[in-house]
Amino acid sequence: MNYAAIRHESTQDYCFCLQPGKFLFRLQTGKDDLRSVILHSRDKYLPLKIKDTRKATKMHRVASDGLRDYYEVTLEFQVVCLRYCFELEDMQGNRVFFSNTGFTSSIPEDTERLFDCPQTLREEECFHTPAWAANKVVYQIFPSRFASHKPVPDRLWYKAPIGPKDDLGGSLRGIIQRLSHIRDLGADVLYLTPIFYSHTTHKYDTIDYYRIDPSFGTEEDLTELVEKAHALGLRVILDGVFNHTSPEFFAFADLCKNGASSPYKDWYYVNDFPVRRLPGLHNYKCFGYFWGMPKLNLQCPAAAEYFTEVALHWLRRTGADGWRLDVADEISHHFWRNFRKAVKAEFPEALIVGEIWHHAPDFLQGDQWDSVMNYPFYRSVLDYVTGSGTASALLGTLGFQRGNIHSAAYPLLWNLIGSHDTARICHLCREDKNRHKLAAAIQLLTPGMPMIYYGDEVGMTGAKDPDCRRGMLWDEKRQDADMLSWYRGLLQLRKEVPALTQGRILSQCADDDTGLIRITRQLDGQEITLVFCAKEGSVELADLAGKTDLLTGKSFDGHIQGITALVLC
Amino acid sequence: MNYAAIRHESTQDYCFCLQPGKFLFRLQTGKDDLRSVILHSRDKYLPLKIKDTRKATKMHRVASDGLRDYYEVTLEFQVVCLRYCFELEDMQGNRVFFSNTGFTSSIPEDTERLFDCPQTLREEECFHTPAWAANKVVYQIFPSRFASHKPVPDRLWYKAPIGPKDDLGGSLRGIIQRLSHIRDLGADVLYLTPIFYSHTTHKYDTIDYYRIDPSFGTEEDLTELVEKAHALGLRVILDGVFNHTSPEFFAFADLCKNGASSPYKDWYYVNDFPVRRLPGLHNYKCFGYFWGMPKLNLQCPAAAEYFTEVALHWLRRTGADGWRLDVADEISHHFWRNFRKAVKAEFPEALIVGEIWHHAPDFLQGDQWDSVMNYPFYRSVLDYVTGSGTASALLGTLGFQRGNIHSAAYPLLWNLIGSHDTARICHLCREDKNRHKLAAAIQLLTPGMPMIYYGDEVGMTGAKDPDCRRGMLWDEKRQDADMLSWYRGLLQLRKEVPALTQGRILSQCADDDTGLIRITRQLDGQEITLVFCAKEGSVELADLAGKTDLLTGKSFDGHIQGITALVLC
Repeated sequence: MNYAAIRHESTQDYCFCLQPGKFLFRLQTGKDDLRSVILHSRDKYLPLKIKDTRKATKMHRVASDGLRDYYEVTLEFQVVCLRYCFELEDMQGNRVFFSNTGFTSSIPEDTERLFDCPQTLREEECFHTPAWAANKVVYQIFPSRFASHKPVPDRLWYKAPIGPKDDLGGSLRGIIQRLSHIRDLGADVLYLTPIFYSHTTHKYDTIDYYRIDPSFGTEEDLTELVEKAHALGLRVILDGVFNHTSPEFFAFADLCKNGASSPYKDWYYVNDFPVRRLPGLHNYKCFGYFWGMPKLNLQCPAAAEYFTEVALHWLRRTGADGWRLDVADEISHHFWRNFRKAVKAEFPEALIVGEIWHHAPDFLQGDQWDSVMNYPFYRSVLDYVTGSGTASALLGTLGFQRGNIHSAAYPLLWNLIGSHDTARICHLCREDKNRHKLAAAIQLLTPGMPMIYYGDEVGMTGAKDPDCRRGMLWDEKRQDADMLSWYRGLLQLRKEVPALTQGRILSQCADDDTGLIRITRQLDGQEITLVFCAKEGSVELADLAGKTDLLTGKSFDGHIQGITALVLC
Repeated sequence: MNYAAIRHESTQDYCFCLQPGKFLFRLQTGKDDLRSVILHSRDKYLPLKIKDTRKATKMHRVASDGLRDYYEVTLEFQVVCLRYCFELEDMQGNRVFFSNTGFTSSIPEDTERLFDCPQTLREEECFHTPAWAANKVVYQIFPSRFASHKPVPDRLWYKAPIGPKDDLGGSLRGIIQRLSHIRDLGADVLYLTPIFYSHTTHKYDTIDYYRIDPSFGTEEDLTELVEKAHALGLRVILDGVFNHTSPEFFAFADLCKNGASSPYKDWYYVNDFPVRRLPGLHNYKCFGYFWGMPKLNLQCPAAAEYFTEVALHWLRRTGADGWRLDVADEISHHFWRNFRKAVKAEFPEALIVGEIWHHAPDFLQGDQWDSVMNYPFYRSVLDYVTGSGTASALLGTLGFQRGNIHSAAYPLLWNLIGSHDTARICHLCREDKNRHKLAAAIQLLTPGMPMIYYGDEVGMTGAKDPDCRRGMLWDEKRQDADMLSWYRGLLQLRKEVPALTQGRILSQCADDDTGLIRITRQLDGQEITLVFCAKEGSVELADLAGKTDLLTGKSFDGHIQGITALVLC
């Protein structure tokens, strides 16, 4: 038994409340190391002679990654404090008990040596995510290049924005006119990158958080957009840039002008005065290096309050459904805790999504964000479909996230295969449509909130920023109709077959030689087998022959040829 | 390489701020699995072409337990965000790099695949513990049985309290008269179990938090006690019971009387009304089963505020130095976060110690408690000295705590070998003085805040509660003078030889056959070797012959005979 790989702590990371009276327990072990795991539990305070509350419950392996297996079980109880330990049996039949004091050959008689789960503490930590969000599909829009309200020559529209003031009429009005495209595609949520006043096309350097950028429209336009989106059943998520501001933002401008005597002295991290704004000679902390966007100090209560109010203001005024938060992992947990409290007090169903590029479970424990931009997913899918990573590595990432991320947040992860901050999936697949389609299939047929970057569905390409921000390809003649129909088919299937997102995994395997991944999920008696293949060549899957591929409606002949994705039923 | 045992997350658990600009990084690996670990770091935002900020820093193995090695390194930097990964080399010379996306054969070129340490986020999480507390010695007093202000017959005093109203005159006045005993022993901190109004001798069922129990004295007595203790260089810690109250506490009494219409309805967890107080038929959550002490619901803001105010009140009124908090692990993190904020805002140097019987790092991250009652230490020392646990198990616990607990809290852990809630160490050692002395040596010669339970130093015995709460043995003829001199010697050595508490471990080993533990620490060129032996029999330690045993002043002849402790220099 790989003892060093076995992990459980009696903390919120491994033992959490799903709803009052219902608790999930998790245990990590070495991969393929154990034959069975049993959770032994009892009431801490009720003496056995009054009532024997002891209970043994089998745990299930719900996920694996390249190194570890993840076991879970749900218990229902009403006690002040539950005591528990684990019984582990390895493949050779050796049994040990794992409790708070380590490994023993039997359940410790001294109950103080067991793990503790104080019920009310766990219930207070209960992670409430918006009920509407689980497994819904997000569509990301870069407003300055999604839809113009005026005619624009193709030669300008279909190329990368060329820096500040490159305004081609992309606007909220334009988006309103194109809502049906998003609805017809089958998405559920619109996410707009920043729309507030700024000189750049991307607007991540906000000058005025209370003003819609005039090139994008007005507050009335935003309200209309949200209303019309809602009427179509679409939610709308805004983008909040609270890590840094434009140097022209009033507070920083005041600081530049008035130095140490500015009332906004504590809003930023300035080393000394006067403020120097020359790239490379900055004397303040900034986001990026060349951009010089000053980093906000949200330890300052006035600044923290200001930006929390900004978030509340737009939810109140427009009915928008939540915020995606830029560079959110460089802002303190303390700020996010208070931010969540303020937002959820008024808008309990608002969605809070943090931008973070790596695994960071500390933001997803119920008191900060509801979800994250899932870049680890992005990297693993990308590596897999482009051949720079293996099938087992992708399956490993999926398993790692399933096993490690809080179960309340897991179905809300924004699974992306590209964004305004990356080259487009089509480009990274070297325009190989099959690879692009495979990536989309993995993204859209798995649990979470897949985030489609505008235009991917019509085969848009583009290298890294700013090339990935070309104008949306509205010209139907230039759109990739086959890709669009692929996306629509995937999204329709996702809605029609809940087993894809909610089914439990019956079995899964990866073969790195053939690049093949198989995942079988089951829900309410329905069994669905996903087959992904990221390598050229021929593979035989005789045991699946005769099943129907729900994507094509055809019977599967048991042979795969090249890069493909199947949904067999 | 045991990949599944390798752990690091870019969270506060593994990467934390020691002081602005100074950061500690931790990595866990399988035991004895690696030859070297190097931390590779670079500025996230400063491009290499502007300045090459890359740096490689060797990490050191600072602790081990039975399963894992713990590596650490301290880095100083001033950046917005640091990126990093680890280079691991195993015993066969195989090298891999461990970053946010797992294991690779070289440092990932895509810097987004590295771990992130956002400097300001980590600095905001900085764990400030009271500067006065590290490695200081606590003396725990059970006030109703420590010192009486009136003559009491021995036959009453020297036996277990027999339940409610068993008042023998133990009081604050009595403690004041005995302060010199504590000072002469060499302790630094007095911790008093509860002293507020209650009918029991233990007073863990508080009736009035604003009133000193009349049998113990008055507020003036407490103020005088704190003043006189301070004059002797002793700190004073009070005991706060905020998990539950006496059923006679005004709020619960009101609830019993007025039911659902009581303004204190939300202060407790009552299932239905009227409240039933019969043991076994309680219709409210309570601490314990037979006792029926109602559990407080500190989710209720009014209740939370009430008890936070209680804590502030007594610090303000008496100058006491902090609180030990009863059953603190069954109260929410949310309450403790606010509690800490309120207490530290007014009393930044106040000590906050939670009672918890197991490892729970989530309370010791800087935003809740400063320290805990270290029961895992208690269990391991006890197991070792009584022979029910091994030498390596004890060394394992010490290493586990060193490797896992936040470095700001580690020197503040209340290391105990007995308390008012356990049988006395003397009793558990079956009155074997050598075993008791060994336990005291381990307790008093290691880092942390050893907590001496009153009377252990004069050889008091007693089975579990209430027998462990007999009157303090003041009769010098009945005191174990040898034990007292052992304790005094240990405490004197602890003060004179900072290497014992602050020295880094040069080497350590445990031998389960002979029951031998050796730990060599070094500080400022001074090397100290601790030798503990928990088994009868003869052991030769030739390499240590000739060194001086600082406890006896004698030269060590290289032979150990039976259960003993040595401090060799």
